Amino acid sequence: MNKNRIEKVIQNMKNKNIDQLIVTSPTSIYYLLDLTIEPGERLMALYINKEGTIKFFANELFALDSNIGVELVLHKDGEDPIEQIASTCKDNCIFGVDKTWPSHFLISLMNKKPNLKFVNSSIVVDEVRMIKDSKELDLLRNASIINDKVIDELINSIHPEKTEKDLAESIADLYRKHNTYEFSFYPIAAYGPNAASPHHDSDGTKLKSGDCIILDIGGRTNGYCSDMTRTVFYGEPDEESKKIYNTVLESNLAGIAAVKPGVKLCDIDKASRDVIEKAGYGKYFNHRTGHNIGIEDHEYPSVGPTDEEIAKPGMVFSIEPGIYVPGKCGVRIEDLVIVTEDGCEVLNNYPKELKIVTEPQI
Amino acid sequence: MNKNRIEKVIQNMKNKNIDQLIVTSPTSIYYLLDLTIEPGERLMALYINKEGTIKFFANELFALDSNIGVELVLHKDGEDPIEQIASTCKDNCIFGVDKTWPSHFLISLMNKKPNLKFVNSSIVVDEVRMIKDSKELDLLRNASIINDKVIDELINSIHPEKTEKDLAESIADLYRKHNTYEFSFYPIAAYGPNAASPHHDSDGTKLKSGDCIILDIGGRTNGYCSDMTRTVFYGEPDEESKKIYNTVLESNLAGIAAVKPGVKLCDIDKASRDVIEKAGYGKYFNHRTGHNIGIEDHEYPSVGPTDEEIAKPGMVFSIEPGIYVPGKCGVRIEDLVIVTEDGCEVLNNYPKELKIVTEPQI
Repeated sequence: MNKNRIEKVIQNMKNKNIDQLIVTSPTSIYYLLDLTIEPGERLMALYINKEGTIKFFANELFALDSNIGVELVLHKDGEDPIEQIASTCKDNCIFGVDKTWPSHFLISLMNKKPNLKFVNSSIVVDEVRMIKDSKELDLLRNASIINDKVIDELINSIHPEKTEKDLAESIADLYRKHNTYEFSFYPIAAYGPNAASPHHDSDGTKLKSGDCIILDIGGRTNGYCSDMTRTVFYGEPDEESKKIYNTVLESNLAGIAAVKPGVKLCDIDKASRDVIEKAGYGKYFNHRTGHNIGIEDHEYPSVGPTDEEIAKPGMVFSIEPGIYVPGKCGVRIEDLVIVTEDGCEVLNNYPKELKIVTEPQI
Repeated sequence: MNKNRIEKVIQNMKNKNIDQLIVTSPTSIYYLLDLTIEPGERLMALYINKEGTIKFFANELFALDSNIGVELVLHKDGEDPIEQIASTCKDNCIFGVDKTWPSHFLISLMNKKPNLKFVNSSIVVDEVRMIKDSKELDLLRNASIINDKVIDELINSIHPEKTEKDLAESIADLYRKHNTYEFSFYPIAAYGPNAASPHHDSDGTKLKSGDCIILDIGGRTNGYCSDMTRTVFYGEPDEESKKIYNTVLESNLAGIAAVKPGVKLCDIDKASRDVIEKAGYGKYFNHRTGHNIGIEDHEYPSVGPTDEEIAKPGMVFSIEPGIYVPGKCGVRIEDLVIVTEDGCEVLNNYPKELKIVTEPQI
């Protein structure tokens, strides 16, 4: 159990007037209890109330050590863990549940506890997770150092015989060499016009001269995620592609330059977006500028036009503007940044100037 | 839209007195609408009421064809799709939701519709999915034909230099050769004492002479799953291992022999379990005998000691008894069967007599 983090959660429950809650998302359980459990269909719930009562409800099949620092309430298959939660929780007050808790558990608890007022309480933990501590920041730095190496190896392996799918499928092996066994998300490799779809699924497309190549990759190392995008060209791009590239690069740098404590995230989005709009490509930048990241690739909150949250030291998010011209090309350049006391620290150091891959390499 | 399947769902709603429901699980959406959508955090819900009103609520980013056969109600990011559902649904009656629908959607709907009685209605669709139609049976037969080939290739590739992990990681390529790009579940390869844990995660363990090797594998081909287990030995097993193997084989055959329409699934479990108990290994068979299978590897219902559901033609499930002796070995033999008019059809044909892998093969 991480006492310090749980105390912050309890403080935030008080701020938000939530009397009791259960945390059920495996990533928040990892954050608060340092346990990696994928419960599948079975129940796992960390109960916390404002008075400081903490109990962990879990199936005995999870084979937990009794020494995890919180009271364990175990159930077997066939027993009803909701009955156990119902007999623990207080009556006539507000009960928070995690946003993705399967509805059948909630319906069962509502039937047993009709006088509770149920609310979505994920934000209580998400706001605590939003500010990374120094140990988390080191893990995020390390994951991004690995990502810089992997994208270098990946770009060096570009070859006209390799389809998008070949390139995407080679990435797991590159991470494995750096002791990274999970993706943050399934990697994107997109060539030419395919790159104009921000979430293109890599397919059998091969390279043509002048194609852009978007590579958006991330791995999870020791529990923390990396996430970066670079766009390179296969052979000399045309003039418009160069203009698009340099506009996105300027936008990426403008976003990064806007990051400092006290700035609203929507204003960071605006700093990036303005560059693209001024260049006349506004309608081709059809997503938010970034997202927070940590144990998960996408954490609360986003860096988009409506995000009023204020940048604070310890927040970590992506700056990833893009321009996607249907039928032609797509360019995205993404770095992760840590908000520091007076600005930000950029976690990705792989070069960003326009790069042309000219020669077949093996 | 599959009209016939939706009519069966509406009939089952009437049987169970559920006035209206939403189907949200991607596999049930695939079953009813023939659409493959992974909505992630976004909302996707097929609304059906007893009177035959059918509407599909979806995010416009899913890029749906307007011609899918049901009325589409689209929303954009930033709009509230729960408001759309609330204004469609009837008041003062029972509203069913799928068991894994994220709680925050349900809480939002409850706040807008306090006079509805919410219930878990997954069983309504699950019972329809339980009886496969002839097209589904052909897809399941084909997936298992491929699985027979893959396990043959896998067993032929066993080599003393290959760890459990090496073997498990080679399986994706074997399936790919047979146009199968997804696992039904992550494959299990377990050697010797590791095999005594039914869900062992393959690791760096190497083979020792006399080891059992459990291989539990399945692929998803054209939307339908295979799942089979074979246990072979590396070098001559000791006498007790042979006895355990032959007991499990007899149990597997007894389970299969018990399958015919009208028999309770718990009695099929009993037929398998009795063989193992009579041989004195009852306490080492610590899981159910099987599970139904189709679009998902585990579907409703199970074949276990408390499953009162009755076998009906068109049901497809596994018969997979096992004996797991801690510190020594584990043996499991699993086949899929289709319940026919007068018995069953076994989908796996890879041989089951005790097999000893003797020579290094590459």
